[in-house]
Amino acid sequence: MLRSEVKQAQQRAAAMFAEAGITITAEEQAGIEVAGFGLDRLETEGLELITYVNTDRYCAKELVLFPRQTCPEHIHPPIAGEPGKMETFRCRWGKVFLYVEGAPTEQIAAVVPAASSAYYTVFHEVSLSPGEQYTIAPGTKHWFQAGDEGSIVSEFSSTSRDEFDIFTDPNIERMPVITEDEA
Amino acid sequence: MLRSEVKQAQQRAAAMFAEAGITITAEEQAGIEVAGFGLDRLETEGLELITYVNTDRYCAKELVLFPRQTCPEHIHPPIAGEPGKMETFRCRWGKVFLYVEGAPTEQIAAVVPAASSAYYTVFHEVSLSPGEQYTIAPGTKHWFQAGDEGSIVSEFSSTSRDEFDIFTDPNIERMPVITEDEA
Repeated sequence: MLRSEVKQAQQRAAAMFAEAGITITAEEQAGIEVAGFGLDRLETEGLELITYVNTDRYCAKELVLFPRQTCPEHIHPPIAGEPGKMETFRCRWGKVFLYVEGAPTEQIAAVVPAASSAYYTVFHEVSLSPGEQYTIAPGTKHWFQAGDEGSIVSEFSSTSRDEFDIFTDPNIERMPVITEDEA
Repeated sequence: MLRSEVKQAQQRAAAMFAEAGITITAEEQAGIEVAGFGLDRLETEGLELITYVNTDRYCAKELVLFPRQTCPEHIHPPIAGEPGKMETFRCRWGKVFLYVEGAPTEQIAAVVPAASSAYYTVFHEVSLSPGEQYTIAPGTKHWFQAGDEGSIVSEFSSTSRDEFDIFTDPNIERMPVITEDEA
């Protein structure tokens, strides 16, 4: 992803934090992680996030999704004898549609990203409005998409080790690679 | 504490959540924990909180302090071979003054509660405004007080086991006892 694209996404996420009344520091804003998953279509498949804290015991992040932006399907595997990451999503602003393993919802509210629809395989819908939350059990495949206005979600979890996440889409690279714009 | 006092404190905390733009559910509002620490002076020494999630791996709470209300000094001991609770405080609204072990701050911003001043023994000040945060290492004595407008603080932590907290003030009972109002 180009540096300029990263900066633009950071500014857009920062504006959403401001609208939601969530204060972040200037340093946090400058460090907003823009995850494009190596797919080069950030608008449809991507995620913006701030990791507030990640220790060997717990982790807390704030996730930002642009309108209809999707975080692709993935699973958190067990690491070094510990069960996979356990996550609680608490919707703070906007609306988010979360999909987990289980009985598929007949008419889902999300629009499956067309470019990679084969890599979305779980369709049990959990719809979260502000103040609502859901805990994803370790070892559960999941993906999520914001509603039409975007969404901000607090993620409370066990220790985060994003680099070990397993995505259903084999084309995905989780860790962002930023390329400098040409002069 | 009387049921009526609990309800009043819950309503006051709920109004602060609304002012801060933090959405909670009706069920969460009805369940706001009002901790008076058995001291019968909630206005000066007390804490209101919602536990969003508390699993065997992590915990997340939202803490509310009324103006100048103080959460008394305590420590989280090791439990069953695990180190004591580790906590990250992130100020969301208002201002909070946190005191931990370390070089005492010369002029602290908090007012030590007069009725129990002997039980406040650590004075290394960490002042937190919205967007600022601090992680309290396990086994560190700490206490905190809101500024003049009160404060809302997100607490991200390892598993919470409040019943084992050790307070410096021997008169404190952590777990609330609610008495029904007389008819």
